[in-house]
Amino acid sequence: MKDTAMYIPTFDDMLAAHDRIAPYIHRTPVLTSSFLNELTGAQLFFKCENFQKAGAFKVRGASNAVFGLSDAEAKAGVCTHSSGNHALSLSYAAGRRGIPCNVVMPRTAPQAKKDAVRGYGGMITECEPSTTSREAVFAEVQARTGGDFVHPYNDPRVIAGQGTCSRELMEQTDGLDMVVAPIGGGGMISGTCLTLSHLAPEVQIIAAEPEQADDAARSFRAGHIIADDAPDTIADGLKVPLKDLTWHFVSNHVSDVLTASEDQIVDAMKLTWKRMKIVMEASSAVPLATILANKDRFAGKRVGIIITGGNVDLDALPWSN
Amino acid sequence: MKDTAMYIPTFDDMLAAHDRIAPYIHRTPVLTSSFLNELTGAQLFFKCENFQKAGAFKVRGASNAVFGLSDAEAKAGVCTHSSGNHALSLSYAAGRRGIPCNVVMPRTAPQAKKDAVRGYGGMITECEPSTTSREAVFAEVQARTGGDFVHPYNDPRVIAGQGTCSRELMEQTDGLDMVVAPIGGGGMISGTCLTLSHLAPEVQIIAAEPEQADDAARSFRAGHIIADDAPDTIADGLKVPLKDLTWHFVSNHVSDVLTASEDQIVDAMKLTWKRMKIVMEASSAVPLATILANKDRFAGKRVGIIITGGNVDLDALPWSN
Repeated sequence: MKDTAMYIPTFDDMLAAHDRIAPYIHRTPVLTSSFLNELTGAQLFFKCENFQKAGAFKVRGASNAVFGLSDAEAKAGVCTHSSGNHALSLSYAAGRRGIPCNVVMPRTAPQAKKDAVRGYGGMITECEPSTTSREAVFAEVQARTGGDFVHPYNDPRVIAGQGTCSRELMEQTDGLDMVVAPIGGGGMISGTCLTLSHLAPEVQIIAAEPEQADDAARSFRAGHIIADDAPDTIADGLKVPLKDLTWHFVSNHVSDVLTASEDQIVDAMKLTWKRMKIVMEASSAVPLATILANKDRFAGKRVGIIITGGNVDLDALPWSN
Repeated sequence: MKDTAMYIPTFDDMLAAHDRIAPYIHRTPVLTSSFLNELTGAQLFFKCENFQKAGAFKVRGASNAVFGLSDAEAKAGVCTHSSGNHALSLSYAAGRRGIPCNVVMPRTAPQAKKDAVRGYGGMITECEPSTTSREAVFAEVQARTGGDFVHPYNDPRVIAGQGTCSRELMEQTDGLDMVVAPIGGGGMISGTCLTLSHLAPEVQIIAAEPEQADDAARSFRAGHIIADDAPDTIADGLKVPLKDLTWHFVSNHVSDVLTASEDQIVDAMKLTWKRMKIVMEASSAVPLATILANKDRFAGKRVGIIITGGNVDLDALPWSN
């Protein structure tokens, strides 16, 4: 976005996003598990974005940004900084449109992630693993390429795109009492708020966060953004802080932010793999971990859970250490 | 089955089985992967029985046997010998009907499998890990309990039940050229033959087998059953030999039996986990392994693949040794 004024995306933006991205994304299935229902006392509906294109929900927002550009805007391509799923997703979307995608990644990012970005046609410029270096390198790349900056989450086009996920979830289930999704920068949660506050305002939205990266929980209680100083958690997609746009949605529409310990996250992750037979990231296990740690809050309820992604290093699983 | 004469199940038996078991099984989804399509040059449709109740397709045949018993027959329950998914599936089905299930398992079977059988309400009698001991102990259990013996695969009720899987697969896809499924004792392949020879006789049925347990491939070429002497393969569900009933279907309806090496099986397994984000057994990777090893046979074709099960020991993955 070249415009620096904060534009709050609307429900109509989400509907337009859904039409725009439909050819490039999967309508992912919703799975259930009678074992996990019995264990939690709730009825759980898992929206499997681990089966999504590029392996994560982030392709929704990235595709909306890429395919919303005019032909003139699209010529110089897109650019971003990310060491995770946003880098993959933006590369995938740009590849589908046939425009350049430049990604600034720390040189310390896993080789597998770099290979995957390149596999989708993304071009990587490496930076040092510090905010200063990333910002300097990114400014240089953006100036050189003239590409449109697609922020991983603090971008109205991205949030409108992520909001398409809970629209599908509502269509695929017969009414829900709550939706629980992980919170990092807040892109998925903001999209969920955008959609549900209009479509099903009775549904409670719960954000789930690692205890060791609980900046959203502390922000929520304090009433203003608190950023963590270098949080460390196995749920590595959830280390980033809230920004103004995502804070807008979190502060206005989220019912609560619940946290889970590292052990609880790994246990919930392994339990889901074992019982539901799906490969998902540690970040995606945080909702179930918080539900298991707060059973009373969820007992008897119909609960939607967003499984955000499945890009895992199979050679370094957290229970095999 | 108390009757020792060979009864060949019919297409109508399969239709009756599908009606009978529908309340107790999942209609599992069919997933696709553009990555794997590109890699193989074929269009692949994965029928995900790893998401099935009790974690494997075997619950189809077991449920058909259990729910096909009259009330009088059901009173004494069911019994079987199995150290794998059939033991889980029969315990699950018997539990749903509320009748006893006795399972003879080698005392060396993994504790996790024993726990799972008991979790579904099955009663275990242990035997030594030899055919002699298993047969003696099983004869004693059957005589003592009077339970109906449900063989893991050489039983017309079981084969009719397994045949419901390819009926769903045909309904869920828009025409196929081939279906590839793993072959061990031949229950799934026989059910596939039963259904497709009637419903879609133009579809080629390919059986996929580990090189290190290639008794079905050798039987197929020899024209009579050859049983392996203690085969050893990571695809541990596929070690058992063909029997008269499954041989009937294999010899009459299977187009070919293809094999894959242990390394090819592990590679295909890991690739599927990584790209499709699903947890599946080594046995379930044998079809993709044979396709990758015989690309010319499948290029340009629409190929259904049965992912037979997902009961894996997450603490002992074959690529983490």
